[in-house]
Amino acid sequence: MLKKILIANRGEIAVRVIRTCKEMGIRTVAVYSEADRDSMHVKLADESICIGPPEPLKSYLDIPRLMAAVEVSSAEGVHPGYGFLSENPKFAQIVEASGKVFIGPSAETLELIGDKIKAKEVAKKVGIPLVPGSDGPVDFQKALEIAREIKYPVVIKSAAGGGGRGIRVVYDERELREKLPLAMQEAKSAFGDERVYVEKYIVNPKHIEVQVLADRYGNVIALGERECSIQRRYQKLVEEAPSASISEKQRKYLEELAIAFCKEINYVGAGTVEFLMDQEGNFYFMEMNGRIQVEHPVTEIITGIDIVREQIRIASGEKLSIKKVERRGYAIEFRINAEDPNTFLPSPGRVDRLFLPGGLGIRVDTHIYCGYKIPPFYDSLIAKLIVWGKSREEAIDRAKRALEEFIIEGEGLKTNIDFHKRLLNTREFKMAKHHVKFLEEMML
Amino acid sequence: MLKKILIANRGEIAVRVIRTCKEMGIRTVAVYSEADRDSMHVKLADESICIGPPEPLKSYLDIPRLMAAVEVSSAEGVHPGYGFLSENPKFAQIVEASGKVFIGPSAETLELIGDKIKAKEVAKKVGIPLVPGSDGPVDFQKALEIAREIKYPVVIKSAAGGGGRGIRVVYDERELREKLPLAMQEAKSAFGDERVYVEKYIVNPKHIEVQVLADRYGNVIALGERECSIQRRYQKLVEEAPSASISEKQRKYLEELAIAFCKEINYVGAGTVEFLMDQEGNFYFMEMNGRIQVEHPVTEIITGIDIVREQIRIASGEKLSIKKVERRGYAIEFRINAEDPNTFLPSPGRVDRLFLPGGLGIRVDTHIYCGYKIPPFYDSLIAKLIVWGKSREEAIDRAKRALEEFIIEGEGLKTNIDFHKRLLNTREFKMAKHHVKFLEEMML
Repeated sequence: MLKKILIANRGEIAVRVIRTCKEMGIRTVAVYSEADRDSMHVKLADESICIGPPEPLKSYLDIPRLMAAVEVSSAEGVHPGYGFLSENPKFAQIVEASGKVFIGPSAETLELIGDKIKAKEVAKKVGIPLVPGSDGPVDFQKALEIAREIKYPVVIKSAAGGGGRGIRVVYDERELREKLPLAMQEAKSAFGDERVYVEKYIVNPKHIEVQVLADRYGNVIALGERECSIQRRYQKLVEEAPSASISEKQRKYLEELAIAFCKEINYVGAGTVEFLMDQEGNFYFMEMNGRIQVEHPVTEIITGIDIVREQIRIASGEKLSIKKVERRGYAIEFRINAEDPNTFLPSPGRVDRLFLPGGLGIRVDTHIYCGYKIPPFYDSLIAKLIVWGKSREEAIDRAKRALEEFIIEGEGLKTNIDFHKRLLNTREFKMAKHHVKFLEEMML
Repeated sequence: MLKKILIANRGEIAVRVIRTCKEMGIRTVAVYSEADRDSMHVKLADESICIGPPEPLKSYLDIPRLMAAVEVSSAEGVHPGYGFLSENPKFAQIVEASGKVFIGPSAETLELIGDKIKAKEVAKKVGIPLVPGSDGPVDFQKALEIAREIKYPVVIKSAAGGGGRGIRVVYDERELREKLPLAMQEAKSAFGDERVYVEKYIVNPKHIEVQVLADRYGNVIALGERECSIQRRYQKLVEEAPSASISEKQRKYLEELAIAFCKEINYVGAGTVEFLMDQEGNFYFMEMNGRIQVEHPVTEIITGIDIVREQIRIASGEKLSIKKVERRGYAIEFRINAEDPNTFLPSPGRVDRLFLPGGLGIRVDTHIYCGYKIPPFYDSLIAKLIVWGKSREEAIDRAKRALEEFIIEGEGLKTNIDFHKRLLNTREFKMAKHHVKFLEEMML
């Protein structure tokens, strides 16, 4: 078992990892930028090392500085958390090359699942449905043929594009004929490449993902699914487990697909296979993430399994010891962000008044404390509220009460706590009819 | 279902009850003494009423003032919490006589279980073993006879006494002959009554109690046991569920005894039947408590059942809906007291720095917040830390890390957090070999 771990991250996830290390008797090394001197992860770790100025590129994303901290502290392993370098194959490779343990999949695996085309090939191979569409760029005639085959609505995407630019949804052939030339023109002017492809447009899908654990000996286990359909601009805001919208049969099916994917690529570590579910209950592969997810606590709460502990055990070369996963009740996570509720822009500041909700069925993961000054340089996530209930209804009632008693106030500081309260009062969320486009509708 | 409840209590239990009320959509009325104006239960309740000066006798123990608050607020029910008037038959009777619902057993039941002699008669009737001894006062010859029959060591207690005064443990007949006259003399001078009785002395017993729920329709269910053997002067400090020292067969046996006791007296509400377990694994009846216990959260955590919710449902006339109780893992509660770690004297003050532990498997029930001034007039309990683990070992490891990150500091304020850390490092606690006299030994 690893004896000393450096956490190459900050904020709540650094605190989260340190907690499990302490429970396992593993020494911890925190790294911090100059803006994070007073951060809770620095206070909780056994040792801490300043790795540079506030800018992420010069601190949390700076591999040489991180590796220097690893060397200086004689850490045996590195936990990358999420974000920052967690899915960077180069970082994983350098950590391993220096004789240390990267707590995550291998560089090769990160490379593979980070390549959307390659990941889709794997999915296809193991029988995970892909969103129907052209395999590559299409001309006008081919686009019409495919659209007829996969049925409208379809979406036209630029082959060279990205970041949501140049995407057009068309609902019938007339519209396709009208918009395809425009899309090609736009693609050419935007990316210097007029090639486009067409794909079935999934209307108001749900985001369903499966948590997996895989050891070095080929054992893979699925810990059930999470639904993360409450999103704003592809950013998850509320996640729950289990999903209220899938059957036990669908759960088994998704778990089998996720396990097959992992086995095909000899996946090792904790990971998440993400799916879209359309309104008819069909599932499509999205991607696989090779790291701990922000929303992992909802799975922990209903299964009782500490996923970070399993990550560390797996990285230390141990075999998976979980034989059977038993679920209890429902869990919902609310991401509390320091942001303006109207503009959604980050709104950090000093925490002058703080009251964390408590009592039965409440878990709070946070790095903030009374008097803490939230630095403006990083992600706006400042706390995660996770509630548990015997039923989804009880979890929602508990969440309402917890959000009501949650106080985070201070000069210049704004949070999205009220947004979550509004969400809980929508008919759609209560009935679990929400989907990834629901927030856009709700905001109108 | 009750629509508005007045909580006739303060501190963490008032906060606890308000939380469940909110989750059930029930309006809450807080009462507070002048010393508790800034208390969290006042802030969280929908309404609040000042009921008098800091002295408990003139506020939280003052029935007319409380009843005035009930009338003024039009509350339909009264939750008494624990301590204060929670087991006062007169209060229960007055609440009910004024047409309100007392959330607890009837005045008659409180009267019955509050009378130790009567409670023992019920226990005997339903087959719960009593500590062997004389049924009443004994003379010299009778004392010798009984001691021979029940075997040494025996304890001599004053029939008129109480509060632990005049108790003598004797280990053989020679010692009995020597100390019995002294005990009688002492009893006479202390209580004006020389009558004494003898009882088997249970050496280093464990405290095991069973949580029950009973509705108005004769349905009684047991939620398993708690072990509360870490005590100082009969005051529980650490409680756990399940007990690591009893078998599934013993659990069933205790649950059956507890249910039989409740059925015999037509008990209604949440209650606790307490037992002593000797070193041979024999159980003896201690008493029944007709209220929510401080340590109820450990049962909630492993069963997922909200005991306060069940209290309110039962008081509202609903039937028990729990069919089967499923347990998961281990839970341990640590009472965090504002007290001097050396003298055990209360040491309240202002909370200037506060960090509550969080993350997986952690529940904190507290009414304190950063800036809160703990008043010196009441119980020194300021927070309860409840940890959960898949196994007892995991729960202990988690407790160590949670206690380590727990910060409660301020001018004049001292807590027993370090005491709990020391306890967790004792071999006896780790091995679950602790008993009600263990703390005395540990402190030596």
